[in-house]
Amino acid sequence: MRAVDVINKKKLGGRLSKEEIDFMILGYTKGEIPDYQMSAFLMAVYFVGMEAEETAELTDAFVRSGDTVDLSAIHGIKVDKHSTGGVGDKISLVVTPLVASVGVPVAKMSGRGLGHTGGTIDKLESIEGFKIELTADEFIHNVNTYKMALVGQSGDLTPADKKIYALRDVTGTINSIPLIASSIMGKKIASGADAIVLDVKVGSGAFMKSLEEAKVLARTMVDIGKSLNRKTVAVITNMDQPLGHEVGNANEVREAIDVLSGRGAKDETEVALTIASYMAVLGGAFDTLELARKHFEKVIASGDALEQLKVFIKIQGGDPSVVDHPEKLPQASRQIEVKAGIEGYVTGFDAEKVGISAMLLGAGRRTKEDKIDYAAGITLKKKMGDHVNLGDTLCILHSNLENNKEAEKMVKSAFIMGKNAPDPVQYIYEIVE
Amino acid sequence: MRAVDVINKKKLGGRLSKEEIDFMILGYTKGEIPDYQMSAFLMAVYFVGMEAEETAELTDAFVRSGDTVDLSAIHGIKVDKHSTGGVGDKISLVVTPLVASVGVPVAKMSGRGLGHTGGTIDKLESIEGFKIELTADEFIHNVNTYKMALVGQSGDLTPADKKIYALRDVTGTINSIPLIASSIMGKKIASGADAIVLDVKVGSGAFMKSLEEAKVLARTMVDIGKSLNRKTVAVITNMDQPLGHEVGNANEVREAIDVLSGRGAKDETEVALTIASYMAVLGGAFDTLELARKHFEKVIASGDALEQLKVFIKIQGGDPSVVDHPEKLPQASRQIEVKAGIEGYVTGFDAEKVGISAMLLGAGRRTKEDKIDYAAGITLKKKMGDHVNLGDTLCILHSNLENNKEAEKMVKSAFIMGKNAPDPVQYIYEIVE
Repeated sequence: MRAVDVINKKKLGGRLSKEEIDFMILGYTKGEIPDYQMSAFLMAVYFVGMEAEETAELTDAFVRSGDTVDLSAIHGIKVDKHSTGGVGDKISLVVTPLVASVGVPVAKMSGRGLGHTGGTIDKLESIEGFKIELTADEFIHNVNTYKMALVGQSGDLTPADKKIYALRDVTGTINSIPLIASSIMGKKIASGADAIVLDVKVGSGAFMKSLEEAKVLARTMVDIGKSLNRKTVAVITNMDQPLGHEVGNANEVREAIDVLSGRGAKDETEVALTIASYMAVLGGAFDTLELARKHFEKVIASGDALEQLKVFIKIQGGDPSVVDHPEKLPQASRQIEVKAGIEGYVTGFDAEKVGISAMLLGAGRRTKEDKIDYAAGITLKKKMGDHVNLGDTLCILHSNLENNKEAEKMVKSAFIMGKNAPDPVQYIYEIVE
Repeated sequence: MRAVDVINKKKLGGRLSKEEIDFMILGYTKGEIPDYQMSAFLMAVYFVGMEAEETAELTDAFVRSGDTVDLSAIHGIKVDKHSTGGVGDKISLVVTPLVASVGVPVAKMSGRGLGHTGGTIDKLESIEGFKIELTADEFIHNVNTYKMALVGQSGDLTPADKKIYALRDVTGTINSIPLIASSIMGKKIASGADAIVLDVKVGSGAFMKSLEEAKVLARTMVDIGKSLNRKTVAVITNMDQPLGHEVGNANEVREAIDVLSGRGAKDETEVALTIASYMAVLGGAFDTLELARKHFEKVIASGDALEQLKVFIKIQGGDPSVVDHPEKLPQASRQIEVKAGIEGYVTGFDAEKVGISAMLLGAGRRTKEDKIDYAAGITLKKKMGDHVNLGDTLCILHSNLENNKEAEKMVKSAFIMGKNAPDPVQYIYEIVE
């Protein structure tokens, strides 16, 4: 088999065989196929696409390119969730204790974030003592005992995807649905998930800018899951504005506490409850989504959800007292109020700009080497649909830096103002299953 | 400027600016842009295409990527020809002395062939003493005095194209019209041509398999010529069967002598006269194609064309007596007659197979290092439209090898037989100017 023949076949619209996909993906991982052939192949995939089964085979090749996590010692259906990424997305912090509370094991493997804010790990590490270095035994013990544990990614999972992603980044081949879908699903499957709930975000702060492409991505990922025997559901959610009011690391932990105590922002709460409910149903804890949802609302109202969060923090070595005393979380030295220079309604956001502003304050990493300032972040005081008077506070920047002019300017330009109130925001667009 | 942005722009259907094209092409030549970005870019060009002006700018970047030949010391309009390549194509051997005979300077720079048979240089080197190592002064002196000279390519012409062609070869990006057109035209322009006649071959023995794509390639190259101020005409010719009866090196010299003496095969003669006439008109020797054509027919009938060929051979150090005594050209030790196993008409050819058979006999190079056997070749005794009786000789293999079974089997399978005579063969399909 020759790489150039596989490239030509795909280029001319052909459906690759499992053998051809393996040849390309595993050969590339081993360095037997050079970058320049892979990048031409990826560009051909961008233009031609891949059939559903073909995409599943690509995903499977990613999984087989490296280590896989063996979670067979964990009892029950291991349910994982994945978000395609957005600004202010702290859903994982909320759903992990919720889903664990109904006996469904959440064995979460997570990475550190690169971009707007930290990843789930970074956010949780803003809690004094919280650590993600667990041995395999501790991890499995915690999940079997407490139904939840979070560990940093170890092992060489989907190295093919890592190598290909780095190449896609510099060759204009990022935005290809089969490549995005197989990359995400490959990682989840290699991490040992039996069932997966996907949060596909769409809007100005998401990678998917249109509902149409979000639907295609969701369908593609759900089909991969089916082909590879993982129960998969995708929830398509709104990312036209940051989720909730808080963006940052400690900030987002604070907001997760709010949601679990029933005082959370509407959008954040709605999305978290929907995703937790699907996870609980896929995990076999409830027969219907409605039953799961009602149960979780009760758990929040009773305070049990907050207790569950305390357990989660405690078993990971963190200080659970932050749940009752969020002021113990890192706080920035400066709180800068950004004021409205115009009267009107917030009709939209350039949500990505909010994320970049937070990164400029130190909440995220531009490069892998950057250190995160857990206290840095942004609190939004106005969101879509809110009326704003001249001089009203649009948001508060939390910063330990001297100069915050750039972040201030950028976050201000992220608010899109209009004379009339916009249509009510739809938090969840569609479920794909 | 970043390569990934240029790739993305092209990928999304954009028209690249001259600056962006230069950035990619000159940057790649210098090694500042890696192979993997160039191959993704080339694949995007394959899918999206390029506008006419954009393709001309690409060609111009190829020219500027390296040396260019300065022919300003040569008087008159320097006319060059280029063939997209076929089997038995000895047109250059015929048209060079013809066109020179009417005072139009033919300053030919040529390469050695890789594939079926040798290139023009290899064919001429089958003549004892013929050499193509001329100094720049000798070359210019010969063209000014005799209106013709042939020299091996020296200098680093269009290195961008060389480097990109090697990459296209292994990344499935060969068959892209703007890339093919700019590659051909870039070389001709860098070689110093003022006017160019293109022989675009179409059929089973050519790179272009359909008349439609041949037309698009011809139009694209003619437009490049116009944009870059080179008079350019493309003649689309038939390559459904080898041109003439001879395939090989000495074989083809022999047939070129036949054509120049008026005894040439009809197809070979027709194509040669058409191309020579266009070259003469572009070179300013005649006002109309008809006048040029009539003149060349007269020159051939009078024997002046043969005399002109002798001059050409002599000034290049070769033995001109081969023109009157073609038996002095290298002759193979074995002449193998390939007989028909079936009765009927020759309705078509897999012309490429004839070329490959000749290569198997030693007439061509599989790799750059292979040595050519000038005496090796094939003489076709039957061509399209001919009736064949059982046991008739289809062709004769000229070989110095012991074992010629493979070549024999292949050449036999190149003849496509039918019960009924096919339509008469059209030698020239169309002129694009």
